[in-house]
Amino acid sequence: MTTETTPAATMRWNGWGDPALAKDLPLAVRALLPTVIGRVQRPEPAVALDDVRVAPSALTADDRAAFTAIVGDAQVHTDDETRIRHAGGRSTIDLVHRRTADQDAPDAVVSPGDHDEVLAALRCAADHSIAVVPFGGGTSVVGALDPERGAHRAVIALDLRRLSGLLHLDEVSGEARFLAGTTGPEAENLLAERGFELGHYPQSFLYATLGGFASARSSGQNSAGNGRFDAMVTAVRVATPTGDVSLGGAPGTAAGPDLMRVFLGAEGILGVITELTLRVHRLPATRISQGWTFPDFATGVDALRRVVQLGTGPTVIRLSDEAETGIGLAQHGKIGKALSKGCSAVTVFEGEPEVAAARHALTESVLTAAGGRSTGADPAEDWAKGRFGAPYLRDALLDHGVFCETLETAAVWADVAPLKAAVTTALSAGFTAQDSKSLVMCHISHIYPTGAALYFTIIGNLKGDVLAQWDAIKSRVNDAILENGGTISHHHGIGRDHAPWLAKEIGEGGIRILRALKTELDPAGIMNPGALIAAPQAD
Amino acid sequence: MTTETTPAATMRWNGWGDPALAKDLPLAVRALLPTVIGRVQRPEPAVALDDVRVAPSALTADDRAAFTAIVGDAQVHTDDETRIRHAGGRSTIDLVHRRTADQDAPDAVVSPGDHDEVLAALRCAADHSIAVVPFGGGTSVVGALDPERGAHRAVIALDLRRLSGLLHLDEVSGEARFLAGTTGPEAENLLAERGFELGHYPQSFLYATLGGFASARSSGQNSAGNGRFDAMVTAVRVATPTGDVSLGGAPGTAAGPDLMRVFLGAEGILGVITELTLRVHRLPATRISQGWTFPDFATGVDALRRVVQLGTGPTVIRLSDEAETGIGLAQHGKIGKALSKGCSAVTVFEGEPEVAAARHALTESVLTAAGGRSTGADPAEDWAKGRFGAPYLRDALLDHGVFCETLETAAVWADVAPLKAAVTTALSAGFTAQDSKSLVMCHISHIYPTGAALYFTIIGNLKGDVLAQWDAIKSRVNDAILENGGTISHHHGIGRDHAPWLAKEIGEGGIRILRALKTELDPAGIMNPGALIAAPQAD
Repeated sequence: MTTETTPAATMRWNGWGDPALAKDLPLAVRALLPTVIGRVQRPEPAVALDDVRVAPSALTADDRAAFTAIVGDAQVHTDDETRIRHAGGRSTIDLVHRRTADQDAPDAVVSPGDHDEVLAALRCAADHSIAVVPFGGGTSVVGALDPERGAHRAVIALDLRRLSGLLHLDEVSGEARFLAGTTGPEAENLLAERGFELGHYPQSFLYATLGGFASARSSGQNSAGNGRFDAMVTAVRVATPTGDVSLGGAPGTAAGPDLMRVFLGAEGILGVITELTLRVHRLPATRISQGWTFPDFATGVDALRRVVQLGTGPTVIRLSDEAETGIGLAQHGKIGKALSKGCSAVTVFEGEPEVAAARHALTESVLTAAGGRSTGADPAEDWAKGRFGAPYLRDALLDHGVFCETLETAAVWADVAPLKAAVTTALSAGFTAQDSKSLVMCHISHIYPTGAALYFTIIGNLKGDVLAQWDAIKSRVNDAILENGGTISHHHGIGRDHAPWLAKEIGEGGIRILRALKTELDPAGIMNPGALIAAPQAD
Repeated sequence: MTTETTPAATMRWNGWGDPALAKDLPLAVRALLPTVIGRVQRPEPAVALDDVRVAPSALTADDRAAFTAIVGDAQVHTDDETRIRHAGGRSTIDLVHRRTADQDAPDAVVSPGDHDEVLAALRCAADHSIAVVPFGGGTSVVGALDPERGAHRAVIALDLRRLSGLLHLDEVSGEARFLAGTTGPEAENLLAERGFELGHYPQSFLYATLGGFASARSSGQNSAGNGRFDAMVTAVRVATPTGDVSLGGAPGTAAGPDLMRVFLGAEGILGVITELTLRVHRLPATRISQGWTFPDFATGVDALRRVVQLGTGPTVIRLSDEAETGIGLAQHGKIGKALSKGCSAVTVFEGEPEVAAARHALTESVLTAAGGRSTGADPAEDWAKGRFGAPYLRDALLDHGVFCETLETAAVWADVAPLKAAVTTALSAGFTAQDSKSLVMCHISHIYPTGAALYFTIIGNLKGDVLAQWDAIKSRVNDAILENGGTISHHHGIGRDHAPWLAKEIGEGGIRILRALKTELDPAGIMNPGALIAAPQAD
């Protein structure tokens, strides 16, 4: 299930993806919007790149010389455009912010070429009291890439895209060692040449890097079969301001705690993952796709739970709720065109023909017994076609003044229904409190024996100070998530947006552990200050 | 696949398991030994419990009063017998040592009744500069339970067996919350009453506790289907000398690093796991057992690799090498009776009938195509009958002067053959260097998509200072493991025996992280000093 789209080398600076693929809002969606969220106001036009104002770079000549000595003059960028292109991630908040004239940006973008240059750059930054934001594909949607200085006098984005490539493929063991700046498509192309696949397809796949997947604990659309990204990582090499750390390797071990895990999900606050070894598998010989419909979400949830608890083995399994099904969000090119009843679901089985067929037969039997009805291959193939396209739609909605954002959580099966209700209520009430109409849609995107992830898409009719309004809504939702047994993030991560709720989720004990790790590895506190845990600020 | 044996309430003080089940060496084994390792010398008789000499308890009246105020007078034990029964684990070295008159023992055994008492006991120990060895079932085979004082003036064993019970079972999500001192059989019985199973069956199953499984990163015989123990843990509650830590919960999350993992495998150096939540499943409705034979180990290894990389789903899969097969070690009641050629293997499939049957059919097809031949159900059922019996045989061998020990490692598939050869050579050469004959046997006990665990059983004819001789042999083997891509332990853990090699495996970076965690959570350094990392010693 590799992509048919080759990503643009440089992403749109103030929106998603390939500038050539940006599209206006489909007519069917335009027609639908007034019914769903009322008349929207077309916003002020977005600022042009040339008109963005950023503060002059705070890098001194001495700072610049120090970084140049490590990576070479051509790899230290202080021009406005490069700085603006590294000014943050791609949350809706980021995009709204990027439509305005005055923006914050890192003081420089430094692009090391190998592990030793990363290590030296971190030491240099610590010596010069300069904060460092590790930067891969730039696809964070939780504020993990904001150019926050913390207590330091400047901040650089450390662009890791030059660390790209496959270092070693062990075809017998099914392990591949990559440089961490390799993007999803680069990795899959390198593996496919040798007959292998990683099989990690989050929506950020086309742009995000392997190091970013690891640092943010990403989870892809094939996670039911291939596992979360952190489960694919078998070893990491990390550059920290205080030296190298290499951990992992054995397929199973009792050699103390799995300390490698400390870096998976650390979002660059402890150091920079420069290399990682990943479990890979032979390119699947077969793919069997099947769509399903369930009379209601509760029936579908119960069916998915049975599938994963019996272990019948789908590669992909997803279930849309009534709202998402009704609007056709999960169907490529069909949004708003044909309103459907019930809840649609998708299953995909990949692997050797006999194994995929057996898994498909077992799963089909379980889903049917649980109240599902097959809708054939087409809906599942449609879903696959549109799987990386949704972020383009968000840009088009923003152009029309429609606020659109996604958020996700996960909980044990017993909490899935109440958590979904609580989040939906918090979202709807949040928009209502802003005197706005909204539509909340949800799907189950990832399943586990003990629970599932809920992925919400929200569109709303925010007017006025959108940033403040969404902040109020999101706070309410985050509280509801934690109060109802959910995790503050299933696969987007923490960044700066979720940091206050991380503290609530892992408690004082968890925060103490994080701070102890940071003090040991990054005593100067230069690494991505403000991500995960609040950073000291300059006086 | 629950056990038919109810364990004795108190394990044999100087050997394995139920004293009533101790047996003399089977005649067939006695007949075989001279051919294999030459004539052995019957050792001096083991010391009787009443004749063991331990130093007087170093606990002062003030210390004792402080612990008594927390757990009550009846739960602070300073009598010699209780101290000797908590003097360490059950490695061969432990057992050889326990046959001698002068023994080290903790200064007291303190038995808290709940989490708060554990927390208070740790604070009390820190205040009084008394080291604490958390003690569950006492089955460590790596010196994790040695009564080491470190820099402190006394050491207590903190017996956690009173923290036993099932706190909550979520039947929908398949999660059970237990007190950490619950033993394997206690947990399975409590779950079976409700129609559930944990399905974790290491050889220590009958005595070891859930907290011990988590603290040592245990792996059971059904790990191919049910996963390693650490993969079953979804949440922990930990008492540390500096307070409580509660981590985990969501089935999948990107809320920062998985900090819960820091405690899994920490072997009590950071605190005491008092409660843990575990993934459980419905009691399997079906079990399909099948024995296999392969012409040689390499063919068998390749077959197992195909099974796990294709994901055909056995619950149990094991492969004995030629030496282990030849002597019948994996066949209950058949050791030494019928010498077999080739390599025997065992598969078991558990679950709902349709799912188990499909997995069995797929696996059978792969194993046959890879050169295996079915030997029917009997050999697999035989193996299951004897699965917890091997440690009794070791005691009988020791009584006859035969040294017997096991060790395990794991590596990626590409390294399995060279690693097995290197360990076998190091063991054989190590015994030869002691002028001793030995027999090295091996099996694959656990498989992963990227590699496998190798489990070695060694018998040898050591004379003289057995402890020093084995120490020399084991050092040579440990070096060989690390030089050939293996982990120093796949599921026994580190304890004190493997600590120097842990430092080599995880490097200075890993040790720095461990020390930073310990400094934060246990600044006084009272928790299990010397396990995992060397502890400061008193002047």
